[in-house]
Amino acid sequence: MPQISEEFERDAHLLADAADAAILPYFRAANLDASNKDADGGFDPVTLADREAEEAMRTVLARERPDDAILGEEFGHQPGSSGYTWVLDPIDGTRAFICGTPTWGVLIAVNSGAAPLVGMIAQPHIRERFVGTPSGAYLLHDGRRRALEPRKSRVLDEAQLLTTFPEIGSAEEKAAFDRVEGRVRLTRYGLDCYGYGLIATGQVDLVIEAGLNAYDIQGPMAVIEAAGGVVTTWDGGPAEQGGRILAAGSREIWQNAMELLNA
Amino acid sequence: MPQISEEFERDAHLLADAADAAILPYFRAANLDASNKDADGGFDPVTLADREAEEAMRTVLARERPDDAILGEEFGHQPGSSGYTWVLDPIDGTRAFICGTPTWGVLIAVNSGAAPLVGMIAQPHIRERFVGTPSGAYLLHDGRRRALEPRKSRVLDEAQLLTTFPEIGSAEEKAAFDRVEGRVRLTRYGLDCYGYGLIATGQVDLVIEAGLNAYDIQGPMAVIEAAGGVVTTWDGGPAEQGGRILAAGSREIWQNAMELLNA
Repeated sequence: MPQISEEFERDAHLLADAADAAILPYFRAANLDASNKDADGGFDPVTLADREAEEAMRTVLARERPDDAILGEEFGHQPGSSGYTWVLDPIDGTRAFICGTPTWGVLIAVNSGAAPLVGMIAQPHIRERFVGTPSGAYLLHDGRRRALEPRKSRVLDEAQLLTTFPEIGSAEEKAAFDRVEGRVRLTRYGLDCYGYGLIATGQVDLVIEAGLNAYDIQGPMAVIEAAGGVVTTWDGGPAEQGGRILAAGSREIWQNAMELLNA
Repeated sequence: MPQISEEFERDAHLLADAADAAILPYFRAANLDASNKDADGGFDPVTLADREAEEAMRTVLARERPDDAILGEEFGHQPGSSGYTWVLDPIDGTRAFICGTPTWGVLIAVNSGAAPLVGMIAQPHIRERFVGTPSGAYLLHDGRRRALEPRKSRVLDEAQLLTTFPEIGSAEEKAAFDRVEGRVRLTRYGLDCYGYGLIATGQVDLVIEAGLNAYDIQGPMAVIEAAGGVVTTWDGGPAEQGGRILAAGSREIWQNAMELLNA
């Protein structure tokens, strides 16, 4: 279905435009402080940005794709009749956002019922969009477009690994992570969804996380798979419902990491 | 000396322009791999970017400031006769660079012999420059200029702390870091020099690192001090030679963190 996926790609950019406009006024705003709750029960700024961005995206969908379902982090599930579901996380990486770090992102995917067809990781402050479609993956940075391709055929000893928190998941999950971490060349922390984009660019080889939701992974999954990489759960199952996630630039490095995670 | 510091500020931007042009072709270049040494003894791409950027900055200084001394990470010390020394780190955050993360930076400072007078943290991919001068601090992002001011009067329990590596320094240093980490609201890793910029923007309250060199800290120090923050060693001494560094948005939070580091 090349035609429908092109429509989805166009609509995903419209959603990202709407989210950018809603979020950026809050990013690094003076006195932005997620702990300052309004005395009258109002929301903190990062929650405001989150909610306003999802509302803005839902407004675009109501106009452009009124028959599609929506699953959003902030406002939950809205049924549809087309068989397609938009999966939205307006700000993935809330803690990065409140620290001013430009590694949070807007995650957008459209799911056919079987798998995410088109997906995007957008970083509005840098003006980058990592995009995956059935025609391939690309990075749009300030209007310049570059095709994305992961690194191939790397051995684990030379791999670069990303994750968000050193204290990943449960004790058992941490032990599994540490088995991989002890074998790779380099580990970096604190990347949130941006790390998945870096697999697609060929900069890093692995992202390992735990405790993800469907809306955390479907956008990144579409990008990495369109670029030629692999995204599964730690046991090799389908990733689209989230959970423990292993993303890799190549099937070889994915296989090597999965063996250690399950050793 | 407002006049000389304005000259320094202008020259610092010229240096950053030269570094940008030298580095960006290597950032996320296809097959960039710091482990691939050329068989003939050539350098890997990140080392090439590092060296070419410092050479480009030294070329600008030879033209604009021929009597000033230079201390650079790559090519060491070059004596001068003016009493001023340019302190340069062409790529702070090599590991961030090779992972494609936009939190590395070009660090530039000019030191009067007593302290850094003017300093800059430049992030070429995002096109951000955090700048400190005797007239104040500002962030230039894509040509938009914003005055920088740290957050004030925060208690440690609400503080946001950044550092680069979870495995900071020696066991003793790690224990000291952990005393602060256990008290703050939020800790993020992997920020390199970008974290110092985020103190100046008022997004985070503390950066704690160990094992720094003079060229790692003088640019950030000038930015934070010009914005109104504090940068010292862990024992409250002068920071400009590097070592164990504590940077804070306010004197109060600096005092609280220092007491725990030395407890």
